[in-house]
Amino acid sequence: MSNNPLLPLREKITALDKQLLNLLADRRNLSKEVIYTKIAANLPVRDIAREHALLKLLTEQGKAYDLDEIYITRLYQLIIEDSVLMQQKILQKQLNHNSETTAKIAFLGPKGSYSHLAARRYASIHFNQMVECGCQNFTDIFHQVEEGFVDYGILPLENSSSGSINEVYDLLQKTNLHIVAELALPIDHCILAKGQTDLDKIETVYSHPQPFQQCSNFLAQYPHWKIVYCDSTSSAMETVAKLDNPTVAAMGNKDGGELYGLQVLAHNFANQKENITRFIVLSRKPIEVSGQIPAKTTILMKTGQQSGALVDALLVLRKHNIAMTKLESRPIHGNPWEEMFYIDLQGNLGTMDMQQALKELSSITLFMKVLGCYPSDNLLPVA
Amino acid sequence: MSNNPLLPLREKITALDKQLLNLLADRRNLSKEVIYTKIAANLPVRDIAREHALLKLLTEQGKAYDLDEIYITRLYQLIIEDSVLMQQKILQKQLNHNSETTAKIAFLGPKGSYSHLAARRYASIHFNQMVECGCQNFTDIFHQVEEGFVDYGILPLENSSSGSINEVYDLLQKTNLHIVAELALPIDHCILAKGQTDLDKIETVYSHPQPFQQCSNFLAQYPHWKIVYCDSTSSAMETVAKLDNPTVAAMGNKDGGELYGLQVLAHNFANQKENITRFIVLSRKPIEVSGQIPAKTTILMKTGQQSGALVDALLVLRKHNIAMTKLESRPIHGNPWEEMFYIDLQGNLGTMDMQQALKELSSITLFMKVLGCYPSDNLLPVA
Repeated sequence: MSNNPLLPLREKITALDKQLLNLLADRRNLSKEVIYTKIAANLPVRDIAREHALLKLLTEQGKAYDLDEIYITRLYQLIIEDSVLMQQKILQKQLNHNSETTAKIAFLGPKGSYSHLAARRYASIHFNQMVECGCQNFTDIFHQVEEGFVDYGILPLENSSSGSINEVYDLLQKTNLHIVAELALPIDHCILAKGQTDLDKIETVYSHPQPFQQCSNFLAQYPHWKIVYCDSTSSAMETVAKLDNPTVAAMGNKDGGELYGLQVLAHNFANQKENITRFIVLSRKPIEVSGQIPAKTTILMKTGQQSGALVDALLVLRKHNIAMTKLESRPIHGNPWEEMFYIDLQGNLGTMDMQQALKELSSITLFMKVLGCYPSDNLLPVA
Repeated sequence: MSNNPLLPLREKITALDKQLLNLLADRRNLSKEVIYTKIAANLPVRDIAREHALLKLLTEQGKAYDLDEIYITRLYQLIIEDSVLMQQKILQKQLNHNSETTAKIAFLGPKGSYSHLAARRYASIHFNQMVECGCQNFTDIFHQVEEGFVDYGILPLENSSSGSINEVYDLLQKTNLHIVAELALPIDHCILAKGQTDLDKIETVYSHPQPFQQCSNFLAQYPHWKIVYCDSTSSAMETVAKLDNPTVAAMGNKDGGELYGLQVLAHNFANQKENITRFIVLSRKPIEVSGQIPAKTTILMKTGQQSGALVDALLVLRKHNIAMTKLESRPIHGNPWEEMFYIDLQGNLGTMDMQQALKELSSITLFMKVLGCYPSDNLLPVA
């Protein structure tokens, strides 16, 4: 390896990458100064015109260096997103006088589940330490938060390839908890096994039904695999770790697999390349969301089944210029004459427009309730 | 605006971003030196172990600067992808003695269609100049290339939210053309209008049925809009440009809209955030694909309808360690006893494994044909 002809070039690249990291860190620090100035001057975190102008300038300059426009655009969308999310976090922390350093968080499954990773991610952003509370089912998570045994509950709400998680929507109908955050977690299903083995030796695969469904194209190539359904990907990994057999594998995530001492045999094979699960964080107390940041408000409403009831509700939103980012309808058990809708709205609960729209909605629906107002986690990139 | 308190900080950030661009350009030049070394030493373009090691080093170093691991990973996946794709391009150009500077390319629709943008993108990567040949339908594109009127035909094959474009699959059955490239184009549908107007004034929207379907959630907010179907998004934009009326709009793309003098009223509202269309490029002559780069081979095969026929074929692929990235089945008109499959395989047609596998497939299927071998455009990112 010592006479690899690439070594001198690679050393140069690694050195350059260190410089790049330095610049990114400097940029982040400047971005921190920006938010303190914005707080003092009460300016919004996002300034789309500035983002546009910067992107235009950089793609123009990039051309002179033979840097592809799409490449620079995608790169800067990430850089801008990181900067905006950091600024949002600082603003929110200040507004909510959030000085807690430890949080108790309830999530689904034993350690290593996607919910566990989401909880860890949420905690790493907002707290120094997390006390973990793995629950057996969604109902138990609601219960833990409602009874004050934990501070927060984290729940998956929808997945970009398999859709909504109806059970969570149904539980949201009955709770008094508030949504205080959302979190988008990229999902990369892996085939994980214990010890020395390879894909060709595998005979049995353990996992939750959803990963099997999301990876059906990949699985079609291994028609002899015996599929075993488990409660969760983490219980699948736990089982495989215990069995310690070169012919069994689990489908789960890399970080979770590490917790169980499993190695990755294959990954990145889901039918859809982009696979993202959106989680929400529930708390007994709503949070205040700064008017300076992009916010979402989630509501629940019940309409009669008469034709046009939903259209009337949507017209109210449009009249007040409130964009809808998600609409999910759920049947009401035992009551085929009414329909329940979950709606994500772009905007802060505190604005006049939102207040007015919600008031009008209340008057034309059978029931309306605000589930929460929280900082938006998926930013519209400029382009 | 001159007393915007953010100005001094923004000037600093802009200056830093210029440095960042400089570094990215330097990195690209180093990466060019790398490929010439790799060509001389016959080393593969991708070195997953090196990519892993670099990413690990950088995310570790990033932590010291308080840079988020996911952020740095996503950023470097883009940087590595750009580098790999550039290296592939250089290698392919050398291998195919490609010194043409102008290419005639056929695509669907008048100027401004997504196919037009894809053609422009393909041309900008490979040629200095493009002679554009807009066609009325897919059949005509095949015809233009087959008869030698143009050098290349570009065709959409599948969209991440609305699925496969069956008509193109069916035309591929009957052609002698070869797939020489694939291209993934991010799609961002926009509402476009002529002159001074805004969303609230719009009464009629023109577009192809597919964008309407992909943006149904957004459209639900404008139940009073009259929807008019067109052959293509570009003919929709053309119509709206001609009508020059503040109450009409087209759904199409930003770059296309610019060609027709339309402005963007709204964008980034598709039901699915990630919306990508995969195009293929057809030519009369196959290309040679370097063994040093990740390649795809697309085949067409016909099996009997007996149960297990497909499984037997897939087992052949597995035996030779050939991964399948896409499987699409199409009925055969007038013949319910047979089934046609389009399969994308990871790997170069020139390898022993692939040759052996295809030979075995030929012997157990009713019909088998290679549609093309070409450089892979979607790289598996390391993580």
